[in-house]
Amino acid sequence: MIKTDILIIGAGPTGLFTVFEAGLLKLKCHLIDALPQPGGQCSEIYPKKPIYDIPAYPEILAGDLTHKLMEQCKQFEPGFTLGERAETIDKQEDGTFIVTTNKGTKHHAPVVAIAGGLGSFEPRKPQIHNINEYEDVGVEYIIKDPEVYRNKKVIIAGGGDSALDWSIFLSDVAKSVTLVHRRNEFRGHLDSVEKVQELKNAGKINLITPAEVVGLLGADKVTGVVVKESDDIHLDKEYELECDHFIPLFGLSPKLGPIANWGLEIEKNAIKVDNSLDYQTNIPGVFAIGDVNTYPGKLKLILCGFHEATLMCQSAYQIINPGKRYVMKYTTVSGVDGFDGTRKEAPKAVVKKIE
Amino acid sequence: MIKTDILIIGAGPTGLFTVFEAGLLKLKCHLIDALPQPGGQCSEIYPKKPIYDIPAYPEILAGDLTHKLMEQCKQFEPGFTLGERAETIDKQEDGTFIVTTNKGTKHHAPVVAIAGGLGSFEPRKPQIHNINEYEDVGVEYIIKDPEVYRNKKVIIAGGGDSALDWSIFLSDVAKSVTLVHRRNEFRGHLDSVEKVQELKNAGKINLITPAEVVGLLGADKVTGVVVKESDDIHLDKEYELECDHFIPLFGLSPKLGPIANWGLEIEKNAIKVDNSLDYQTNIPGVFAIGDVNTYPGKLKLILCGFHEATLMCQSAYQIINPGKRYVMKYTTVSGVDGFDGTRKEAPKAVVKKIE
Repeated sequence: MIKTDILIIGAGPTGLFTVFEAGLLKLKCHLIDALPQPGGQCSEIYPKKPIYDIPAYPEILAGDLTHKLMEQCKQFEPGFTLGERAETIDKQEDGTFIVTTNKGTKHHAPVVAIAGGLGSFEPRKPQIHNINEYEDVGVEYIIKDPEVYRNKKVIIAGGGDSALDWSIFLSDVAKSVTLVHRRNEFRGHLDSVEKVQELKNAGKINLITPAEVVGLLGADKVTGVVVKESDDIHLDKEYELECDHFIPLFGLSPKLGPIANWGLEIEKNAIKVDNSLDYQTNIPGVFAIGDVNTYPGKLKLILCGFHEATLMCQSAYQIINPGKRYVMKYTTVSGVDGFDGTRKEAPKAVVKKIE
Repeated sequence: MIKTDILIIGAGPTGLFTVFEAGLLKLKCHLIDALPQPGGQCSEIYPKKPIYDIPAYPEILAGDLTHKLMEQCKQFEPGFTLGERAETIDKQEDGTFIVTTNKGTKHHAPVVAIAGGLGSFEPRKPQIHNINEYEDVGVEYIIKDPEVYRNKKVIIAGGGDSALDWSIFLSDVAKSVTLVHRRNEFRGHLDSVEKVQELKNAGKINLITPAEVVGLLGADKVTGVVVKESDDIHLDKEYELECDHFIPLFGLSPKLGPIANWGLEIEKNAIKVDNSLDYQTNIPGVFAIGDVNTYPGKLKLILCGFHEATLMCQSAYQIINPGKRYVMKYTTVSGVDGFDGTRKEAPKAVVKKIE
């Protein structure tokens, strides 16, 4: 059982900044995220895209935003349960909560902050009738650990940035990389498209286009796929191709998922909260912050999540320290004391004689 | 008469970010500030102090925060009335407002956003009975334009960073700089104290300590001061010193000022607003955002001002464009179109054949 002060569902920008604000109040945080790394869609969907409306950043790449937030909160030593989806919540008699993931990991906390963004990102799956049988035994929709593919034969399907970037990356790791796409044209960063062309010319990526994977082979794990390839005069041919892994990268789409069944008031696929005070949901002790919540005038902007997280932490403090009064201190005046023993503070003024 | 869409009282971080958010909605802004430059207390009081709780900035100097916000909003071409204090507000028959400064400058806008921080910063004045008579004719509490002092004889009083830094700066501009302080010890950045010592040794700054300026001389403008100096055996001597300018730099303290008389609901020296929607005050069309406002759970943090500004702009849009529906677009998707013709946008993905 993992124990913490504030259990945060979702490790996107809002969740990460919650760690910092909670840390200033001496509260520990643990984050659960279905994705294999922190940052939410900023890291998973558009790490190389610039954002222009983060205050005081005229421009910042979404991936860099994640790095900055990780750096800002690291002295408060957040815990992470990554690659697992929060599945159930159980309120205990003492008012605390136990949250269990799809893999059975249990978390215990007096306060739960749902910072789930648009929901957990579920992969778009190709239309192959028996694909469910091969999930996690040769079919993966998200690459969690590239080392899994070392010296393996890998077939990637897709025509966007993920398919291009992982083909490039794995061409150095896997025994062989085959990229299958239903068109001849790829849509992505110019750099990535050109790099794949180069690796194809060097014989390091096999390219099959226009083509689709239409079947999966293997007794208890993937040993090959069936490829349907169209030639120039639109005649299709089907053939088998040996492989250890089939990785369809057709994008992710967000789903509110199991949270929708937690007894929370839902409106327009988002969780209703009390924006007149602390972004608490209809379940006392459970808050919803960032894109996952809704209230009159709500804007789904990262900067709003930062504010909501900050106000929410004040109420979390009251729940965890009943009756104790917290006096807010400015970081500029009081500095920041990390749980790891580090201290940040403004340089002190000297008092010095001039003679 | 200056005309604009949103008239912002206060050019601190919240006011500056309002320009950006309003700009995304194609609304123009004009800012009034009593200080001679934008940035509020970040620029005037602690430009060299690090702030640790701006989201995604593990550390940023207050002065740099101002620069970043100015850079972020500059394509929306804000107007500025600086060095003037908003004095009166008059509601017109059509529901718009005219705001007049202490120098008589008039501003006309359908929406007023008070982002006045802790209030306008009023200088702490030394106890010299006739000092009021010399204000702006040789006595200045804030240095607005250092060129005013070129080839002049300047006497500065004070023992903190402002007194030290301006003595250093003006030693290169003025004919002579005399620094008077009631103690031998100065309180400030080590660099600044050491630099003043160096300039004193080189004869470029005259230092008189422990001493006070106790009188002002001159018929219709300052021509000199009376200095009271204590020697080692605690005997005071008084003498006259010729000068063109006397600049007491004893710090600034914030006062809500004339805004307190605008008919706004005030609580704990702050303006009450409706935090359940858009941070509007009891006067429709007048909003209060950032440290100047109060509501249940309010935290006087810069990041909260950013959020409040953003939500407020949505209501401003409705007031200015009644009945028109605004569909929020993400900057990552739609880019940012400046009023100056510039455009920022994410690099487009290419669609390219690999052969």
